[in-house]
Amino acid sequence: MRLLLLNPNTTQAVTDRLAHVARAAASPGTEIVALTAPRGVPYIVSRAEAVIGGGVALEMLAEHHAEFDAAILAAFGDPGLGGARELFPLPVVGLAEAGMLTACMLGRNFSVVSFARGFEPWYRECVAWHGLASRCASIRCMADDFASLETVQQEHGSDLVALAARAVEEDGADVVVLAGAPLAGLASAVRLRIPVPVIDCVAAAVRQAETLVALEPRKALVGSYRRPAGKASSGLSPALTAWLAHERE
Amino acid sequence: MRLLLLNPNTTQAVTDRLAHVARAAASPGTEIVALTAPRGVPYIVSRAEAVIGGGVALEMLAEHHAEFDAAILAAFGDPGLGGARELFPLPVVGLAEAGMLTACMLGRNFSVVSFARGFEPWYRECVAWHGLASRCASIRCMADDFASLETVQQEHGSDLVALAARAVEEDGADVVVLAGAPLAGLASAVRLRIPVPVIDCVAAAVRQAETLVALEPRKALVGSYRRPAGKASSGLSPALTAWLAHERE
Amino acid sequence: MRLLLLNPNTTQAVTDRLAHVARAAASPGTEIVALTAPRGVPYIVSRAEAVIGGGVALEMLAEHHAEFDAAILAAFGDPGLGGARELFPLPVVGLAEAGMLTACMLGRNFSVVSFARGFEPWYRECVAWHGLASRCASIRCMADDFASLETVQQEHGSDLVALAARAVEEDGADVVVLAGAPLAGLASAVRLRIPVPVIDCVAAAVRQAETLVALEPRKALVGSYRRPAGKASSGLSPALTAWLAHERE
Amino acid sequence: MRLLLLNPNTTQAVTDRLAHVARAAASPGTEIVALTAPRGVPYIVSRAEAVIGGGVALEMLAEHHAEFDAAILAAFGDPGLGGARELFPLPVVGLAEAGMLTACMLGRNFSVVSFARGFEPWYRECVAWHGLASRCASIRCMADDFASLETVQQEHGSDLVALAARAVEEDGADVVVLAGAPLAGLASAVRLRIPVPVIDCVAAAVRQAETLVALEPRKALVGSYRRPAGKASSGLSPALTAWLAHERE
Amino acid sequence: MRLLLLNPNTTQAVTDRLAHVARAAASPGTEIVALTAPRGVPYIVSRAEAVIGGGVALEMLAEHHAEFDAAILAAFGDPGLGGARELFPLPVVGLAEAGMLTACMLGRNFSVVSFARGFEPWYRECVAWHGLASRCASIRCMADDFASLETVQQEHGSDLVALAARAVEEDGADVVVLAGAPLAGLASAVRLRIPVPVIDCVAAAVRQAETLVALEPRKALVGSYRRPAGKASSGLSPALTAWLAHERE
Amino acid sequence: MRLLLLNPNTTQAVTDRLAHVARAAASPGTEIVALTAPRGVPYIVSRAEAVIGGGVALEMLAEHHAEFDAAILAAFGDPGLGGARELFPLPVVGLAEAGMLTACMLGRNFSVVSFARGFEPWYRECVAWHGLASRCASIRCMADDFASLETVQQEHGSDLVALAARAVEEDGADVVVLAGAPLAGLASAVRLRIPVPVIDCVAAAVRQAETLVALEPRKALVGSYRRPAGKASSGLSPALTAWLAHERE
Repeated sequence: MRLLLLNPNTTQAVTDRLAHVARAAASPGTEIVALTAPRGVPYIVSRAEAVIGGGVALEMLAEHHAEFDAAILAAFGDPGLGGARELFPLPVVGLAEAGMLTACMLGRNFSVVSFARGFEPWYRECVAWHGLASRCASIRCMADDFASLETVQQEHGSDLVALAARAVEEDGADVVVLAGAPLAGLASAVRLRIPVPVIDCVAAAVRQAETLVALEPRKALVGSYRRPAGKASSGLSPALTAWLAHERE
Repeated sequence: MRLLLLNPNTTQAVTDRLAHVARAAASPGTEIVALTAPRGVPYIVSRAEAVIGGGVALEMLAEHHAEFDAAILAAFGDPGLGGARELFPLPVVGLAEAGMLTACMLGRNFSVVSFARGFEPWYRECVAWHGLASRCASIRCMADDFASLETVQQEHGSDLVALAARAVEEDGADVVVLAGAPLAGLASAVRLRIPVPVIDCVAAAVRQAETLVALEPRKALVGSYRRPAGKASSGLSPALTAWLAHERE
Repeated sequence: MRLLLLNPNTTQAVTDRLAHVARAAASPGTEIVALTAPRGVPYIVSRAEAVIGGGVALEMLAEHHAEFDAAILAAFGDPGLGGARELFPLPVVGLAEAGMLTACMLGRNFSVVSFARGFEPWYRECVAWHGLASRCASIRCMADDFASLETVQQEHGSDLVALAARAVEEDGADVVVLAGAPLAGLASAVRLRIPVPVIDCVAAAVRQAETLVALEPRKALVGSYRRPAGKASSGLSPALTAWLAHERE
Repeated sequence: MRLLLLNPNTTQAVTDRLAHVARAAASPGTEIVALTAPRGVPYIVSRAEAVIGGGVALEMLAEHHAEFDAAILAAFGDPGLGGARELFPLPVVGLAEAGMLTACMLGRNFSVVSFARGFEPWYRECVAWHGLASRCASIRCMADDFASLETVQQEHGSDLVALAARAVEEDGADVVVLAGAPLAGLASAVRLRIPVPVIDCVAAAVRQAETLVALEPRKALVGSYRRPAGKASSGLSPALTAWLAHERE
Repeated sequence: MRLLLLNPNTTQAVTDRLAHVARAAASPGTEIVALTAPRGVPYIVSRAEAVIGGGVALEMLAEHHAEFDAAILAAFGDPGLGGARELFPLPVVGLAEAGMLTACMLGRNFSVVSFARGFEPWYRECVAWHGLASRCASIRCMADDFASLETVQQEHGSDLVALAARAVEEDGADVVVLAGAPLAGLASAVRLRIPVPVIDCVAAAVRQAETLVALEPRKALVGSYRRPAGKASSGLSPALTAWLAHERE
Repeated sequence: MRLLLLNPNTTQAVTDRLAHVARAAASPGTEIVALTAPRGVPYIVSRAEAVIGGGVALEMLAEHHAEFDAAILAAFGDPGLGGARELFPLPVVGLAEAGMLTACMLGRNFSVVSFARGFEPWYRECVAWHGLASRCASIRCMADDFASLETVQQEHGSDLVALAARAVEEDGADVVVLAGAPLAGLASAVRLRIPVPVIDCVAAAVRQAETLVALEPRKALVGSYRRPAGKASSGLSPALTAWLAHERE
């Protein structure tokens, strides 16, 4: 099984971390190919950047999806997920989606814990889009002062554990979802320092993608997730243009 | 007052219609400048195309917003609206938003009536995003068989009136919102054939944009709609790149 | 265009303030006529008083609506709004309604900020009646100790700014709605002291009433907001009695 | 125990029917005093008339409440209930409230069945105000063609049984609430013709009022249902004026 | 009238207290028979124990229901209530249900106040199951350190009054529901120490059971609460086995 | 990895089918042990039977859980799931839960399709308990006339396909969840006859159980899903008694 791990951000170091954690979580026989966005922003932190990243994700999928059994949209917030699911025939799972749905099987309420307060509005809209607001106890984020995406996990591990503790104690979280690609792998490092189950979204997403492949769901032929009819476009990437035009099937 | 009427689709004929209706609806002293998307799809009908169109809208706003007092995102579904409101200092109002909120002042429940069934999922997500699901009696769309965007209003006016009548009779709509840029101007033509108030989203959006300008709201300095901190990006349009980097203020 | 600014309370000084702010906010060519309730309470602060004020508002509209293009129900809480919209053929907009719907175009969540804690339950029911609870971040009111309706704005401007700051910081408000007729005009005075957009409900209501007139909505002929069939009544004001009996059309 | 059965409508024949059913439902030792509104409309069918009837109900309570242990607001839709509960020290229960809450103890979902389609919007707002929308399977009303309030129950009993059957079969109602004062007593006549429990709102309200008296709840001293502070008013009924002014305690 | 007061826990002292309060609350002519669970746990505090207690409650009802006019499921949380209502022909009311629905007639929002923090998740699911989340201001419980079920009321009365005061002041409770069978009778002792109405769930349940009997609701013949078709089972109590098999009618 | 497939019903033929499908869906190295309830009902179809089955499931888990890495509660409706998750240290996943959460990754709305109309109320409560009502397009069940649990899948496959088609066409389902243990395996047989993805709950549950094991979640030490404190009980199964008493850890 080949999974495409698609980072819609342009930071290669984050992709590397994602790939490392994904490979550790994958079943035997699953190959992970990780790609970094060829254009866009280093890291999505707002609604505007999510729109940009979502468009880039569609371009990346248009170019590469044919070689894979499923794809993982590897940014918490799942930019472009609905569109990707609509356009392409392979299963596509988002980091937030996989983390939150997996958390739902371990308790009633989950809290999302992340490292930058600016994420909260975008994350909140993501939770609502997934229809999971009634199971989200809280979204807790650190103040905005991390030094770099590469080191945030090492530098702020204890801060994040403390945030998780508050989510458990004050917000009633049964499960903690560590959110954001730069936190990939942190869950296994801190799991015994948090008194409830902790979810690593990358590990969850890899397993969920494998599950979707195993279930062999057909591509919807009708309804909201059927592939839109072919149409001409202009000024988009060659692969996306071709795919929208049904030049490739 | 100068309003930017931004069509995130590439069909100039739709822009022309939008501009015509917008100018008729504008107050004395309001100048309407209508722009067509320089790239993208002819007409957004899906989540995927909304992501694409939302990104194009941000590029257009980055290039042109400085010359305007407010902007209208002229596609029902409001692609990229949250991001636009975040990034830019001028008020930005969406076609769906303006139509639905105005409808709320004329009755309890509105129905959205449009011409292509494919719109429904995207429209439904738009209604939910605006938090207005409890006031939306229904979304009713014709089967997918219109001949062209330019003529759909003329050819299918009676079909749409019939759909509106069913929304009133069967779904309990107190107000009808005619949705989709190609239907601009239809409301005034059919208003006496529908037994409840009918909203033209373009007219509503022009008036709402004028209202926002008149109220002189400041740009948020904090919170969810403050402008994100400057950051480098790559591969985006020059104007958007500069704006994201805070090279322009 | 002639707008009826209807104060359902008996305090003339509040009417005067409302009229002053309304005239400043109106477009050229809009005439504002402000009327004070001929009977009732000096200022509505409870559900019981809202019922009383709502009835008085219907009497005032029965007597005067024929001379106007639209009416503004000028008490936050919108007493009698549904009934007024049902009975009379002209557009009627409420102060709370106009303020909250306008706020929705400037951010995700608004907070209502007012001067007397007693308002909160009534305001909360008003928010719910409008179906806007999911967009209301909070209702924050001062403790009940203002000296007079006429001076509350001057004496407690800084307290209200401080409440707004807490709504932004602690409740996540993207927009602040200053609620209550005695606060008319305060928004423009304090707009630069609050870090997000601030809505003056009277200014918003004037503009929204103008918008409704411009859109020329027909009176509903069917459904929930059609005019009820004529019926005899007893003991009500002469104008309302005549209107309910369809003696006037 | 003395219960005030307050008909906020002016139709004495309806009051007589209400009193008859109420007395049959009351426990030994409970005395029912039924009063007809001295002014207002013959029968409330709209939001506007509910505002009027709510105001009249407050006047009636101001004049008479001191002689009673509890009061029943005897119009489905519960006009003025919140205000009545706020102002007066005795328990006040609404016909809709009693019927719906009692129904909740006999099944998951209830349907409201009534005789005039015009009631539906007002009833729907009443259900929402009580926070019971999630338990209301449907509101089903006959078309608007009953001959008189006095005879609607006799003439249309079978139509109402048929409506109830559809509510059970098509809407999933576990319980049927027969709504509207003119239907008082119908439930016992048709209970074996409907395959689920049927609620008579008057009987339910009498029992619930007795229950509230038996529980001896104190009048709230703080919060949303404390009695508002004394205030002057003008042009209201003498008894209501005195009560608002705290001239009586 | 004979009411079965069914304690699904095995603690006889709690049953005795329940019976004492129930008899004091009952109308003349109502006989209360109180039964303690013959097996199970001393006191339900978790979802798991609620499942166990619910099963035991069904066994007890199968054995005894034929001798009674109605039954009270006397544990806050109402374990097995839906199943009991389905299986048996007599009205069955839960302690939480009766307390919360009665509270709804005395104010907008109620708070549930109890003595052990561990109850909160189960209570919260109970509130949600009843569809009353929108009227529940809060669930407030003491820390988990009471000495015994028999004395918790005496030892911690003041703590519970203080919790109730916080629910009123901080959470906006209009009514307080004292939850948990061991608190039966406390409401009348502390009612003047809490500034809003306080509900004793046992007293409320007795009165509500009487009301249901008085209304003579038929057993549903169709739909969700009809009696399930007869079926064989194995390993269940003799009475329940016989009842499931329709050996008794 | 060893998974316990726990059938809370007493029908061995259903267990056999479940085990067959589960083994086909399992990854290499996963061992499935299937157990049939030693007491209870042949097949759960109501709330009452779910309470009974939930209790039996806890007994089975108390006896067997120590030998497994995770457990599957193999009845759609997930009887006793919350209690099981609370009591035992291994991950426990329900058939409905696994099917619905997996469906969420393949589209916006799922419909539940099953073979007996009597399931609907219980299934609806199950959907609500999981907080997934906003993603459930409909629950569609055949009329109650299947011949036997063993053959329902063979006899009614085409009926179920037709129901699924209606769910897609009329209810807007993006995904179909085939519900009920007797339908295990049907999804793969009919997947090309339904135009959207179809979920087999047993296959989904096996994969989700594997995923939970792979993620190594710790047992909650605090909060709503911590193991309840040890307590004495009486009359329960020996294993459950011992586990509740913390005689085993």
